[in-house]
Amino acid sequence: MSAGDLAAAVLAGDRLALARAITLVESRRPEDEADADALLVALLGKGDDSTRIGVSGPPGVGKSTFIDAFGSMLVGLGHRVAVLAVDPSSTRSGGSILGDKTRMTRLARDPNAFVRPSPGAGALGGVAPRTREAIAVCAAAGYGVVLVETIGVGQSEIAVARMVDFVILLVQPDSGDELQGIKRGITEVADAVFVNKADGEGRERALRTRAEYEQALALATGGKVPVLCGSARTGEGLEAVWQTVVRATAARAERDARRRAQARIWLEEALHDELVARLLRRPTAPERLAAAYREVEEGRVPPRVAARRLSEALHD
Amino acid sequence: MSAGDLAAAVLAGDRLALARAITLVESRRPEDEADADALLVALLGKGDDSTRIGVSGPPGVGKSTFIDAFGSMLVGLGHRVAVLAVDPSSTRSGGSILGDKTRMTRLARDPNAFVRPSPGAGALGGVAPRTREAIAVCAAAGYGVVLVETIGVGQSEIAVARMVDFVILLVQPDSGDELQGIKRGITEVADAVFVNKADGEGRERALRTRAEYEQALALATGGKVPVLCGSARTGEGLEAVWQTVVRATAARAERDARRRAQARIWLEEALHDELVARLLRRPTAPERLAAAYREVEEGRVPPRVAARRLSEALHD
Repeated sequence: MSAGDLAAAVLAGDRLALARAITLVESRRPEDEADADALLVALLGKGDDSTRIGVSGPPGVGKSTFIDAFGSMLVGLGHRVAVLAVDPSSTRSGGSILGDKTRMTRLARDPNAFVRPSPGAGALGGVAPRTREAIAVCAAAGYGVVLVETIGVGQSEIAVARMVDFVILLVQPDSGDELQGIKRGITEVADAVFVNKADGEGRERALRTRAEYEQALALATGGKVPVLCGSARTGEGLEAVWQTVVRATAARAERDARRRAQARIWLEEALHDELVARLLRRPTAPERLAAAYREVEEGRVPPRVAARRLSEALHD
Repeated sequence: MSAGDLAAAVLAGDRLALARAITLVESRRPEDEADADALLVALLGKGDDSTRIGVSGPPGVGKSTFIDAFGSMLVGLGHRVAVLAVDPSSTRSGGSILGDKTRMTRLARDPNAFVRPSPGAGALGGVAPRTREAIAVCAAAGYGVVLVETIGVGQSEIAVARMVDFVILLVQPDSGDELQGIKRGITEVADAVFVNKADGEGRERALRTRAEYEQALALATGGKVPVLCGSARTGEGLEAVWQTVVRATAARAERDARRRAQARIWLEEALHDELVARLLRRPTAPERLAAAYREVEEGRVPPRVAARRLSEALHD
């Protein structure tokens, strides 16, 4: 199938074509490059009205359960929902395909939802640019909401904040004690905080935690980061989250300014990736790279001199 | 002065030559490249016995006071001490030269110490590779201890951990509450924790905080990250810090393995830097880059297509 045919199929809502299109943009095979470029050009400007939402939070806070419930609720409201994951770490091992499907059981079965398995960590170059492209493809395919889950900590939360319109940070009840340590981080990456697990016996603690976050963030952000509370398990509070997102992204001028700033970062990341990929594509690259690693490890050549020689040898 | 003469002067202990050598390796002017490379080659293998220590911690914890006192103590023990700073953020403004000199008043006046002002944030490319090179130059100049202060948070602490033999994390008394939130981060970047400000009325609180950290880290690290306590103001506990560093770095095989792993990262960072610098050096680069930013901001070209075109146009 040509890139043009694939683009047409994606725009027509063909799920198989969507899966193939994402695989194409995620591909690191040089022979896929021209097709991936052509596909992205063909999809340009489509899906701009789609809302991209990042879901962050520490391991164990219930991100998958939240996405499963929040996404199902949105489908119930008539939206088509796509789910992607960003994981910039290179240490995560395989098994994620089965993992994602079983983690989001409701959503994965829904005909109006599309759950994309997490990409395998790329050996070289960042995963971030490819996730941005996967988001763009899902949006073009008519998914009015794209949910992006962060896998891993730290870097992935910053990465996701740079590719979505709105970030929801999930936190645990009783996590207010950590607030001083992470307050700065919260204001950097989150547009709203959701205290999860406010159900059963945890309800009171969650409400208290919400108050603690509210007080701390009111000072730090002037009330710009609302703090919500609820339970992904029972569904309580999820509608309020969606209303918060809708209100925050209604001002198109602001949303578009954020997207323009993101496009600049995206270009810079893509440029880094492209330059490294270009270099590594040379037939002698693996051998020369291995030799350079050895030289610097043994202290025989300063790293920057090795880098310069590497780049010169491979450019000629 | 040729690079060879400069290297000889650095090795002879000439302070002015050392300052010039650091300026040379930090330079981003293409015409300085060959000299910087030659200098680093000439200094290769010199100063390998120098101990490189990172000093991290949140703003206000007293990093400058600690470095001033710790460095002065080391000079008193007969060591020559150099101080550098790493700041990967690009937002920090000028004024750091006066700042560093006035922050470390004792050390800055000492003939056996060398306090290097923080580098200005580079507009393009990472500051990290240049700091590594500045460390190597100080070590070659006969400074048996190189202290590297982190400026900024998060990224700079990870960066410094990748360029020194040992990282001391300074924490505040009463910061034990934040422990759960930062425990993972501590174990990633720190080789020892020092609870500072254990003086006067703060003493009891600091001791209690030390016990909290000790307990938490004993579980998380199996006791591999010792927790110390003292006061940079009074000097208490600083000798114990030095003994901890000496013990930890005495096993040369381990230290060298860490340095070899760092050299690999250093090469990769230098390669990224080199590739971007190479591209930006083309006469038409600024104009083409500006055009590419515009295209992606306006959504006329997918970022990765713009990156590819940019790299192709500038390579031809």
